[in-house]
This record gives sequence, structure tokens and C-alpha cells, in this order.
Amino acid sequence: MKAAIIGGGVIGGGWAARFLLNGWDVAVFDLDPEAERKIAAVLDNARASLPQLYERSLPAEGALSFAGSVAEAVTGADWVQESVPERLDLKHGVLADIQAHSGDAIIGSSTSGFTPSQLQEGAADPSRIMVAHPFNPVYLLPLIELVPSPKTAGAAVMRAKTMLQSVGLYPLEVRAEIDAHIADRLLEAVWREALWLIKDDIATTQEIDDAIRYGFGLRWAQMGLFETYRIAGGEAGMRHFIAQFGPCLSWPWTKLMDVPELTDALAQKIADQSDAQSGHLSIRELERLRDGNLVAMLRALKARGAGAGALIRDHEDGQPLARPSSGGMIQTVDRVVPTDWADYNGHMNESRYGQVFSDAADVVLASIGADEDYVAAGFSFFTVDIHIQFKQETKVGQHIRVDSQVLEGQGKKLRLFHRMMDADGTILATGVQFLVHVSLTTRRSCAPDGDVAVRLEALAQAHASLSNPAL
Amino acid sequence: MKAAIIGGGVIGGGWAARFLLNGWDVAVFDLDPEAERKIAAVLDNARASLPQLYERSLPAEGALSFAGSVAEAVTGADWVQESVPERLDLKHGVLADIQAHSGDAIIGSSTSGFTPSQLQEGAADPSRIMVAHPFNPVYLLPLIELVPSPKTAGAAVMRAKTMLQSVGLYPLEVRAEIDAHIADRLLEAVWREALWLIKDDIATTQEIDDAIRYGFGLRWAQMGLFETYRIAGGEAGMRHFIAQFGPCLSWPWTKLMDVPELTDALAQKIADQSDAQSGHLSIRELERLRDGNLVAMLRALKARGAGAGALIRDHEDGQPLARPSSGGMIQTVDRVVPTDWADYNGHMNESRYGQVFSDAADVVLASIGADEDYVAAGFSFFTVDIHIQFKQETKVGQHIRVDSQVLEGQGKKLRLFHRMMDADGTILATGVQFLVHVSLTTRRSCAPDGDVAVRLEALAQAHASLSNPAL
Repeated sequence: MKAAIIGGGVIGGGWAARFLLNGWDVAVFDLDPEAERKIAAVLDNARASLPQLYERSLPAEGALSFAGSVAEAVTGADWVQESVPERLDLKHGVLADIQAHSGDAIIGSSTSGFTPSQLQEGAADPSRIMVAHPFNPVYLLPLIELVPSPKTAGAAVMRAKTMLQSVGLYPLEVRAEIDAHIADRLLEAVWREALWLIKDDIATTQEIDDAIRYGFGLRWAQMGLFETYRIAGGEAGMRHFIAQFGPCLSWPWTKLMDVPELTDALAQKIADQSDAQSGHLSIRELERLRDGNLVAMLRALKARGAGAGALIRDHEDGQPLARPSSGGMIQTVDRVVPTDWADYNGHMNESRYGQVFSDAADVVLASIGADEDYVAAGFSFFTVDIHIQFKQETKVGQHIRVDSQVLEGQGKKLRLFHRMMDADGTILATGVQFLVHVSLTTRRSCAPDGDVAVRLEALAQAHASLSNPAL
Repeated sequence: MKAAIIGGGVIGGGWAARFLLNGWDVAVFDLDPEAERKIAAVLDNARASLPQLYERSLPAEGALSFAGSVAEAVTGADWVQESVPERLDLKHGVLADIQAHSGDAIIGSSTSGFTPSQLQEGAADPSRIMVAHPFNPVYLLPLIELVPSPKTAGAAVMRAKTMLQSVGLYPLEVRAEIDAHIADRLLEAVWREALWLIKDDIATTQEIDDAIRYGFGLRWAQMGLFETYRIAGGEAGMRHFIAQFGPCLSWPWTKLMDVPELTDALAQKIADQSDAQSGHLSIRELERLRDGNLVAMLRALKARGAGAGALIRDHEDGQPLARPSSGGMIQTVDRVVPTDWADYNGHMNESRYGQVFSDAADVVLASIGADEDYVAAGFSFFTVDIHIQFKQETKVGQHIRVDSQVLEGQGKKLRLFHRMMDADGTILATGVQFLVHVSLTTRRSCAPDGDVAVRLEALAQAHASLSNPAL
């Protein structure tokens, strides 16, 4: 698959990174002589963060190229993303150029200010044009507001959704064309109110940020506005909440009936307060902090299957699980070490070696039919004993693989050998793990189910011919 | 310390739980005959979630009592929290009753609708009255908007801050009295805009929630509004961002100049959409989901020392570390098993046993001076080998302790024995861990620093007299 990115700023660069790290080839066109450097910076951030969201490898990174013209960039593309500055005449010109050379590619616009109908004015073929409005950083946040107009073809919208989902994005189809779509209307409301708070010296940028990140920001990251308020209504539910909270709307709380004038003095005040708050960190440092926080929170939600974490799980399910290894063993792990596995020495916490081997055992078990359904049916293998030998340090972001071998698989006993390696095959650690089959009802050991027992014995016999790893 | 909670709904119950789980005694007064049941439900949720935020035990839970009058509840209290319904005449009556019997307690009000000056009208002693506005769930979210009036004593504000911090809350002093303080002004702006989106059939409650939790909600949970936009400004910074984004404010994006009439039809529409979104779950189930998500995200931020996670770290630093155990060993771990340690069998993931022993080793190392400063100076102990025997399953929320013993401590070699037990002393697992002292500069083994070596040998000798654990 190929994506063409027209306009290579922070947003265009984020789109490029999202496609590349999901195995697409990407061609970028931007007149800015700095575009290549800027995209490289975004891509560095994306490479350092996005793969950490997954417990499996993403596809091999696609090829990045810089085109000399729109025509060159869009030729052969499946998706064309327009992210040029927010001027309608400029966008019309670029869209005409794209349509002249892009076959039947989907044409998405990153605009927050224009409706698809406005973008389609004078277009040769409006049916493939739609708004695909992303959120920064595009390589980590899944939301895309996908806004068609009545002239956009339904089939094109369907195709667009499939492609966006395939790179881990969440297309939220906006069913009506309105200025600023959905999220930016909410954002703008908050931004205006925040400007009043600063202008009136009620709060500084730091205080407003603290009021958000120590309170409702945490609620919204996992459930949003309405589900949170549904809970606030308590047992009496949403109608009760509205009855309680509704009347407050007629109180003169907000200043939003009015727009504060964005004078030079107010702009400078905000910039000064922001400098006092975050000026000791460079933008690059802030980006790394933000991305690390987002990865850690997204992984926390993923582990629970909640919020955006559920989307990451779905995307991961589409990636291949481990497969037979060349040496006759099973390749049971193939992944990147995520940030939440680091210890204070700056390398992978020693306990995570055990987790990697535990994950490897799960893959062996799944391969003999002892999977989640088997557990749901009341049986499982429990680890009784593990012996881990640590050979080398392992760092966050490092690519690791595990090959696993059955040393003993007979009746209720299972003994596994795991070898963890880096991308070059250097051994990082080994583990010998002894598991016993148990009934989850009696919590006692017992012989496995017939099918599982047969498959286990077959696997043990196949692995018996492998050389016995030196321990 | 003692807190009095006047008004025991969801908010009052959350305050009660926050104080109780931090070791305070709490007396509740509420006329609602259901108050005891409601507070018990909030407390159940709090007990299931708050202790999981910490890697150390919180103080033993305080005593909860229900008082027959305001006078009985507030007698001897250090903090009195008023959370009665938002009617000024009602609050004035309750505050007068509180002041008549509460000595020099701090009097906080959970109001979002009134200013402290309004609350203080006619008060016998306005100096101790202030707004202390919390966010639901109060037992997990750290933000408290602390709003004094000119009549509130500066010393009382200082005292209030110290007490709030001691129970893990973050008092954000609001420097000006305005309606709705800071956060609720932002929330109300979003709420109004969201009502328009629903009234105009642009989006449903589910779509608005998705637009938040898959996008900007995640950004706000860790950095808030302005630090996020500072990054969006890129290398050119905050002034550049304002120059870019500022002009949009004069566009007619929002409907906020007007308040939508909250008709019965609109209220029913919201309730119906909310039912379609979340009606398959009870409020209790939604609360557990929300709390689990908050715990997981807060722990992710805590591991990075970011956002609200930094506050939890600070609070944890005030709790005692492990101490000598009765058997002559060192009690190295004393904590609750957090949600992110669960595996799909519903008990503690086997790799976390390794983490518990790794944490235990850190405490032993800190006790001989091989602490974070020592690592910063370029030396550390690396685990070379660990042998774990799993005796019993361990569940999320379970209280665990580890006793550790030095089996060998000589030169660059350190061999530890760990015994992990539940609250009753039942052994859950044992570990024998072999560590080697290394230079972080050469990445090779070497003898420890003089002081560390001396302390290690002394500890090894002290432990040599202990019985050798059967392995």
C-alpha cells in the first residue's frame, strides 16, 4: 500500500509515520526546504513510541520518499492526505492537482476549519474527497474525524474506514457537516474559557493545566463526558443527573457569550506563563515526555481492554502471532520492549524476563489448544517453578524474540526451555519453566483434556529430536 | 486525626473514604436513612482501588462512625467537610451548626456553585471557612480547588493544604473568588457545546465520548491544555501557536453565545442515548470499570513520575519503608497487589513474583547503602540468576509481605532468600536470587565500594545465625 502526504508539517509528518510504521510506503510532497528534517524528527518520535503499544511486531517499516511534485507523490497512491495550511483557495488548487494524477485514491483532508462540501467546490470528482481530521500526535492518538459530504461516495467512505483501521486508527464518521466537526468545537469552547481565566488573572496556564490533569482530564481519557456523568447521576441514572446539573446552565458561570480580544498583551501573557511553566524543557523533550506518558496510559488501558486500549488490542489481533522458528523450536515472542518495563538502571526490569517467558509459554499452550477458551472451560497450566539465567542487559525499544522448546510433556507435567534473543540472535536470557496442569474448579493438578494431551505429546516428541540446550 | 463529613452522598462518601484509608477517624452526619448503605458502597469501591496506587502500605484504616447530629459529628474534628445540597440557606444553617461545636477545625465546603464569601455571610468565625471543591471519585482523583475569601485566615489555608496533602490530595489554591472556580467553568463550557451537538443531531453521547477518549482526553490526562498546545506550536513555541490558532476564535464555530433550552424532550434524548451507550452496565459496574481504568492510568503515570502520578509518588514517600521482621530477617515488601499485575486466570501474573523479589532486593540493597545515589555514582548489583518456587495463588487486592535474608554476601557476590507471605503468614512463594556487583561504566563485575562492602558483610554475618531456609 502507498500513501501520499501533501504538506509535511507536524500533522503531515504524523500521518507519514502512522502509515510507514504499519508497513505502507509513503511519498511526501512539501515546498518547505526543511520538510525532510521536520518529518525525520516526527518519525524518530514515532519509532520510539508506537511499536511499544503492541505485544507483537508490526509489519516491516515501509519506504519513505520525497517527491518533487504533487503528481509524483500521488501516482499509484491508495490514500492521499492533504495537510496544507488552512486557506481554502490553496486547498482547492492542491486538491485539483491531486485529482489530476491520483487514480481512484481516497483523498483525505486534515482540515479542522472547512467542511467537505467547501473542499469539493469545483472538484473534478468530489466522490473521493472527505475530511479525515486527525489529532496530534497522529502516530499515537487513534481518533480520526471522518466527514463525508452528500457528494462523497458511500463506497469511498467504507474503503477509507477499512484503510484507517488497518493502520490502527479509529474513524469516527461525523454524520453532519458542521464547522470544526465535533472535537474541535469542544476544544474551542474550553480554549475561550481558558483565555478569559488568564485575561482576568484568575488562573495561570500552569494552574489551568493542573486543574485538568489532576481532575477531569483523567476521567475523560478513559470514558469521556457522558459516561462519566452517567455515573455521577448514581443509581438514579442519567435523567437524575440532568435534573440536578441542568439548572446550573442558566447561571452566569461562563464568559463564553463573548470572545476575548486576543491582543498582543494577552498573547504575550500566555506565552510568558507558558515559558514559566515549561520553558526549561525543549519542544523535543516535551514531545518525548508526552509520547512516553501516552504510551504508558494507552498500555494501561490496553491491559484492561478499556477506552483507546481496546482499539489497540483489536489492531494487534490483526498482526501475526509467533510462528515456527528455523531451528525446529517455536518462535513464541517477537516484540519491542515497552517503556513501562524499564527499571531505574535504564534497562528492562529483571522481572520482565519472567513475563516474556510466561508470554512465550502462553503461545506454546495456545498451539496445543490450551488457550483462553480452554481456561474458560475450567483448565489451565500453572507455573510451579522457573529458573532464569540473565545473560545480557535489554533496553527499552529493543526488538526481542524468544524461541521455545518442550523438554518434557507427559501427563500433567510440562517443562519448557526458552531462549530470548535480540534482533541479531545474541542470547539475552534463558529460562527453564516447569508447569503443571490444573483444574480451575478443584484448584488441583489433573491430566489434561484428551485433545490437549495428544497435541502436547506430539509436540514433545517433535522437540525430542532437537539438541538438548546446555543449562 | 478526625474528619467530620456533613452530607454523605457520592461526594461526602468519597471524602470519608479518602480520610479513612489514610488512617483518619471519620464521623458522618446525614439525615438520609440510606446514608450508611451509600457510604458503604463508596467505601467498598475505595478499598478496592486506592491502596493499589501505592507500592507501600497506607496507614491502618481509621474508624468510621455515624453521628446523630452535626454537633456530635464535628466534636473533636480536625477537618469538617460540608457536602449538603447546593442551596445557600441550607448551607448557612449547617455552617452555623458546625461552627457552634467544632473548635478550631478547618471547615471546607464541596460547593461548586457558591463562593466562600457567600458561604461566610453571617458566620460567627469566617476565618476557618473555605471552599474545598473535590472531583469524583474523591478517593482517586487528587484535585481539590481550595478557595479562600479575603476573610479566610492565611494560617487556616496553610493548615488546610498540609492536611489535604497528607491524605494524598492536591490543593490547587484558587486566587480569586469566581462562580464555579476553575475546572467547572471549563466543564460547563464543554457541557453546553455537547448539548448543542446532541440537540442538533450532529452527534450522540457515544460519539461525543469517543471523540474525547480516543483523542484529546488522553492528552489532557497527562499534560492539560496549555502544555499540549505549547508542543503543537512546535519549535516556534507558544506565541506561534497563538498566532496560528487565535484567528479561529472569530469564526462562528461554537454555539456557546446561547444556552440550549433543556426541555423534557432534550433531557429524554440524552437519557435514551446514554442508555443505548452504557445501559447494559449497572452504575456499580461502571464505577468499577472507571476506578480500574483510573488506577491503571495513574499507576502508568506514577511509574514515569508524570502528571498526577508524581503526586502519588510524593505521597508514597511519606509512608514508612519496610522494617526489620520479627524473625531477624528484613521485611522488604508490604503492599497490595495492583490491578495491572493480574493475568487472565484472575490471579497475580507469575512474572510479578519476580518483580516482588526484585523490589525486595532493592530494599536490602538500599539498607546497605547501594541506593539510587549509588547507582547514579556508577555502581549497581545485577541479578544473574533467580530461582522462584510458586506455592500459592495470589489475587489482585491481596495484601502481601516479603521477608528477606542474606544467604551469602562476600566481595562482589550477593545471594538472597525471599519469602513472600499473605496477611496471615501463609507462604505464597520463595525466591533464591544471585546478584553480582557491577560497574555501570565498564559493565563488568567489580568489588563494591568500601562502605557498601562493610555493611554487606555485617548484614551477612547477622543473618548467618538465622536458620537456613529449606530449599
